[in-house]
Amino acid sequence: MTTAIEMTPIGHVHSPRNEAIDDDWGAVESTIEIDAERFGSEVLEGLDAFSHIEVVFCFDRVDESKINLGSRHPRNNEAWPRVGIFAQRAKGRPNRIGLTTCELIGVDGHVLMVRGLDAIEGTPVLDLKPYMTEFAPRGETRQPAWSSELMAGYWVLDQ
Amino acid sequence: MTTAIEMTPIGHVHSPRNEAIDDDWGAVESTIEIDAERFGSEVLEGLDAFSHIEVVFCFDRVDESKINLGSRHPRNNEAWPRVGIFAQRAKGRPNRIGLTTCELIGVDGHVLMVRGLDAIEGTPVLDLKPYMTEFAPRGETRQPAWSSELMAGYWVLDQ
Repeated sequence: MTTAIEMTPIGHVHSPRNEAIDDDWGAVESTIEIDAERFGSEVLEGLDAFSHIEVVFCFDRVDESKINLGSRHPRNNEAWPRVGIFAQRAKGRPNRIGLTTCELIGVDGHVLMVRGLDAIEGTPVLDLKPYMTEFAPRGETRQPAWSSELMAGYWVLDQ
Repeated sequence: MTTAIEMTPIGHVHSPRNEAIDDDWGAVESTIEIDAERFGSEVLEGLDAFSHIEVVFCFDRVDESKINLGSRHPRNNEAWPRVGIFAQRAKGRPNRIGLTTCELIGVDGHVLMVRGLDAIEGTPVLDLKPYMTEFAPRGETRQPAWSSELMAGYWVLDQ
């Protein structure tokens, strides 16, 4: 049953950020350049009717041999409980998949302009999906306090 | 820059649905069984504090050689505009990645019980992430009418 699955990036991120900084990603404007050797620009046709997209990418700078599968305190903050890797969104995870909903500012040929994408320069992109409100959680959501504390400055740092 | 990326499923879906039906997924209860040969149950530690999870999976029954990269009418409905594959969430897409937020009912050892996961029996799972409201879209969202019409019966069919 467990067969490896091979993926080819559909494009790459161009970001002003070259390092995986913890916080303040909300105002970062970056571009996603779709691989023009494989795709015509029609793969993006109609995408600009959506305000937001979901970007699936690969944390390719993470060394797979160093991924720790034990539970740990997020950001090594001992005030927060130890949790498993699938109870966190940290980058050092099996398959190194990142996933973020960001604002789509515009589309020009093979290039998307986005705001609030927490992926660094050169990140390989695996998929793009239009954000539909129907894919938001059905029903009330609940999450532990540590996760809200961790996210407090993720998009906008309190100056 | 475009190097292939190899992934190994972290587990598989067990669903009462064996076929990719278009609609009425909301009440479907399924399980995700994490690969116990590779992971201890601590990878899920703390996940039950979240009401919802994001499941990244592979549409492995799609024949990659048949993926159509031209724009098309979603569900072949000519009342809707032609759109590109990255402006849709259809399964016949490059890298065949599926992505759904579903309700987490419970965790028992290596098994997660979920509700509203639109993946069929045997689907390979690539990642699980806890749903945090901070990862919802920042700002108002906008989407075209066709997408809301397409999604009208996706979770609950009007009987």
